[in-house]
Amino acid sequence: MSENIQIRLKNRPENAPVAQDFEVFHGQIPVAGAGEVLCRSLYLSLDPYMRGQISGRHISGAIHPGDTMRGETISEIVTSDHPDFKMGDVVMHQGGWQVYSLAEAAELTLVDHRIEPVSLALGIMGMPGLTAYAGMLYLAELKAGDRLVVSAASGAVGSMVGQIARILGCEVIGIAGTDEKCRWLVEEAGFSHCINYKKHDLRGRIEKYCPEGIDVYFDNVGGETLEVVMGQLALGARVVLCGLMAQYNTDVVPAGPNPATIIRARATVRGLVVYDHFDKKQEFLNKVLPWVEQGLIKYREDVTEGLENAPDAFVRLMTGKNFGKTIIKI
Amino acid sequence: MSENIQIRLKNRPENAPVAQDFEVFHGQIPVAGAGEVLCRSLYLSLDPYMRGQISGRHISGAIHPGDTMRGETISEIVTSDHPDFKMGDVVMHQGGWQVYSLAEAAELTLVDHRIEPVSLALGIMGMPGLTAYAGMLYLAELKAGDRLVVSAASGAVGSMVGQIARILGCEVIGIAGTDEKCRWLVEEAGFSHCINYKKHDLRGRIEKYCPEGIDVYFDNVGGETLEVVMGQLALGARVVLCGLMAQYNTDVVPAGPNPATIIRARATVRGLVVYDHFDKKQEFLNKVLPWVEQGLIKYREDVTEGLENAPDAFVRLMTGKNFGKTIIKI
Repeated sequence: MSENIQIRLKNRPENAPVAQDFEVFHGQIPVAGAGEVLCRSLYLSLDPYMRGQISGRHISGAIHPGDTMRGETISEIVTSDHPDFKMGDVVMHQGGWQVYSLAEAAELTLVDHRIEPVSLALGIMGMPGLTAYAGMLYLAELKAGDRLVVSAASGAVGSMVGQIARILGCEVIGIAGTDEKCRWLVEEAGFSHCINYKKHDLRGRIEKYCPEGIDVYFDNVGGETLEVVMGQLALGARVVLCGLMAQYNTDVVPAGPNPATIIRARATVRGLVVYDHFDKKQEFLNKVLPWVEQGLIKYREDVTEGLENAPDAFVRLMTGKNFGKTIIKI
Repeated sequence: MSENIQIRLKNRPENAPVAQDFEVFHGQIPVAGAGEVLCRSLYLSLDPYMRGQISGRHISGAIHPGDTMRGETISEIVTSDHPDFKMGDVVMHQGGWQVYSLAEAAELTLVDHRIEPVSLALGIMGMPGLTAYAGMLYLAELKAGDRLVVSAASGAVGSMVGQIARILGCEVIGIAGTDEKCRWLVEEAGFSHCINYKKHDLRGRIEKYCPEGIDVYFDNVGGETLEVVMGQLALGARVVLCGLMAQYNTDVVPAGPNPATIIRARATVRGLVVYDHFDKKQEFLNKVLPWVEQGLIKYREDVTEGLENAPDAFVRLMTGKNFGKTIIKI
């Protein structure tokens, strides 16, 4: 490839994004300056938080029309003017939605050689996996025997939340949006139950699966699902709020559950942002990689080939049509 | 007094209660059976949670039309058929809105002789005080230097929350509904600031008094106040949800703050019900009574004479027209 390709934001969508909200740019491959490293991306991670960046509401900052989309990539080093990195090294960094990118050495991390396939470093062994790990080990005060519910359960974060909790002795109930996702979660990922919220009465199913209430809820969606679940917390429940899928696609900020639900259950509700937990990355890898190697943890990747197809893949992700960690193979 | 007087619920109000929702009954003084104790109430506590009982929404159970209103009283023992209690003992119990009541010994507690005046056992040295103590010492993870905001700040719970926090080294900002209440909180109770939310822009004042955000919020009201405050939490904030004044007077259950407010602040939100903390009562008395004796804690009582006037006093309480702990002197 002798040119660079970038995907830029064209329009700020008001609701769910469409492919036409993005445009493809062709340009020259950048030239590394003193101390810089030129990277060629192999895999790009697409994540729901990007919708928040487009709206200007994400804590990591806004993306404006005309800007190249940001995102985490796994890249191979093409040229390096820094002693810590050499041509051919595989690194993780914020390469963005483009083929070539320049980086300072401080922005690059070598991918742990134990991660195989390497794309897992963007998913269950990367930021989404660390999110789940921090939530389960540090925020949820998990106890064996807890009944845990997780929404967006077949996603990278959700499927790891459920499987880590299962390994730690919990009974896990997932919430997902298709029968196929539910089937995979129960048959492959070892969830006790999974509720297809588009098809079944969420409230009634939770009552059935958690007759004594929910001990731990890990929320990736907010909105109506959060409200229904909060009405069914057990005494002393713990709730980890992590994602807001239900409101990323709208500029109208919806309300949340009534505070009475928290008082009644004497619940503890905590907000989780993975940036606070980067210091636990080695601990996470050391603990969870063996589980993956032993086959205790299953994963799904939703891989699309070609950077030009990233807008379509992002649209599918934001409308729940993906299945597993959404990755672009460049 | 040779007859008993009771106040019963007549109608379930839809909005704020009016005195006509209650009626006065005159009847005979009950006669104590084997092992029972006959009590004559001296003071009756009126509390916002009673509005929830009337609606059938409080965790302690419902009060139906025709039922005598329930409530905590300080009573003198008239006759006793139990060895642990004798005539003239002053006890605390659920005497209800009536002059005479029968009780089992197990339902009675002798009032700690250090509590002076004895009516404080219904207020700052009783359940409201214990509520504040448990919230501050066990739920709020208080640190010296924290900036704490408390709503319904001049009430029994709110004024104790603020003063305990102040004694423990926090800067305290109250939210109350009249200038008179605000003045008392700043000039007498040692709050740093108090915001009259009916007169001033709550959001703007909090920004001014907490330019780096709120570290701890103790909520007695829910509704719009909760929503405004949740938008201004500092990183790592702790929120104790305790009361729902804004929704007691309505059958429409309002929504709560958007979950993004909790995620953004990495906040910890906990529900507080004082019933869980009765085991800390002695610890509370031993720690806080000296503060009261040393004049470190100020209090206000809003005393109405005569049980017949309890409905009027309750109406004033539920419309924020009381000032301090609402007590009926019988």
